[in-house]
Amino acid sequence: MRDAGALWLYGLHTVKAALANSGRRCHRCLLTRPAADNIGDKALSRVRAEIVAPEQVSRVLPQGAVHQGVALSCDPLSPRKIEEIASLPGRKLVLILDQIADPHNVGAILRSAAAFDAAAVVVQERHAPSESGALAKAASGALDIIPYLSVVNIARALEQLGDHGFWRVALTGDAGQTLAAAIVSRDLALVLGSEGTGIRRLVRERCDDSATIPISNRMESLNVSNAAAIALYECRRIDGE
Amino acid sequence: MRDAGALWLYGLHTVKAALANSGRRCHRCLLTRPAADNIGDKALSRVRAEIVAPEQVSRVLPQGAVHQGVALSCDPLSPRKIEEIASLPGRKLVLILDQIADPHNVGAILRSAAAFDAAAVVVQERHAPSESGALAKAASGALDIIPYLSVVNIARALEQLGDHGFWRVALTGDAGQTLAAAIVSRDLALVLGSEGTGIRRLVRERCDDSATIPISNRMESLNVSNAAAIALYECRRIDGE
Repeated sequence: MRDAGALWLYGLHTVKAALANSGRRCHRCLLTRPAADNIGDKALSRVRAEIVAPEQVSRVLPQGAVHQGVALSCDPLSPRKIEEIASLPGRKLVLILDQIADPHNVGAILRSAAAFDAAAVVVQERHAPSESGALAKAASGALDIIPYLSVVNIARALEQLGDHGFWRVALTGDAGQTLAAAIVSRDLALVLGSEGTGIRRLVRERCDDSATIPISNRMESLNVSNAAAIALYECRRIDGE
Repeated sequence: MRDAGALWLYGLHTVKAALANSGRRCHRCLLTRPAADNIGDKALSRVRAEIVAPEQVSRVLPQGAVHQGVALSCDPLSPRKIEEIASLPGRKLVLILDQIADPHNVGAILRSAAAFDAAAVVVQERHAPSESGALAKAASGALDIIPYLSVVNIARALEQLGDHGFWRVALTGDAGQTLAAAIVSRDLALVLGSEGTGIRRLVRERCDDSATIPISNRMESLNVSNAAAIALYECRRIDGE
């Protein structure tokens, strides 16, 4: 079995989630004895596992990767479609990331999205991190838990979500209302932009409304993954009221 | 003027905040023409500024530092004390970080703390990132906006805060109540632990109460800076009700 086309995931949470995902095609797992004890024989039974020294795990990964003694070679996940997400049962919350490029931020957003039961995270193919070890590690397993959709055109994806009945809210620094005021009881698509350039005009024009997380005028903005976490929390809090 | 003992800060927001902080002793600033135009002559008048090529800015910084064309050599800030924070006017919210070592997480927490008008962020000297360019960059200026206190002993700092009338809440994954239920109308100290080991027992024993941010059982935890952002947001939201 060759590793061509495959990627290396690493970190205990990340590898456990990948092994638990029946939709993830896994090849080889290089891991230390303590990591193997942590993950367990049952989870490892579906992959060719080799007990090795920590240095051998490091060798297949980018320099400095915090691997916790385990690396898993596997295929990227199959692409998902907006239609699939829209047809999921129940009320849905989707995050749309407009040109957020940093894998640590996008990974942390995936992690929060899974933690708050979002239905999917949607990014634009050309300006977003591809599925990688660094993204998966920051997502702490979430990449194998909620759909991560790469689309060619974010504005078009918003049109599709609108056609499916989603209410689309742009999260900006200068909207006239708070996020709490903008949340409605239907399927919701929340759009976040990059910290530098914000949401692009063509994307914002596809939204039904805009909203702001109120912050002190001492700071210009929040870190984008922190803003996403707050928005997800707020949506779930209001649902529970 | 020598740079010995000084540190290099970088990034536009970070350097602007340092130059605007009268308590920050600044030495030299290496910056590109566009960065100088962005920062402005007035802010730069208090420092020896040299217009240079981007490569010369990179040369004084760690490899890969995203400096946006500017580096500032300055002294670390003077240490602050718990008593100072406790005597600030108005109702106060303080974050206590128990052994959170990653400068990116701590920086992002400082940024959110400033954005939600927290009074201070307290860390333990031995297990927290020291003031550095990476910490300051992740804080996006917040290091020069809110006090960052290094204490020898977190449990002792919590005792002091208690003596000053602070209500001390440990944020954990397994408390019997939500954060929203635990917030009270008095000075508040919120304690967060590292993602790996949580809050240490001796620290937790100094708290008056504990609380959880409710998340899906699909995920074990949130990224710690995301949890801090949600906690800060929730405290301010409840204040506003």
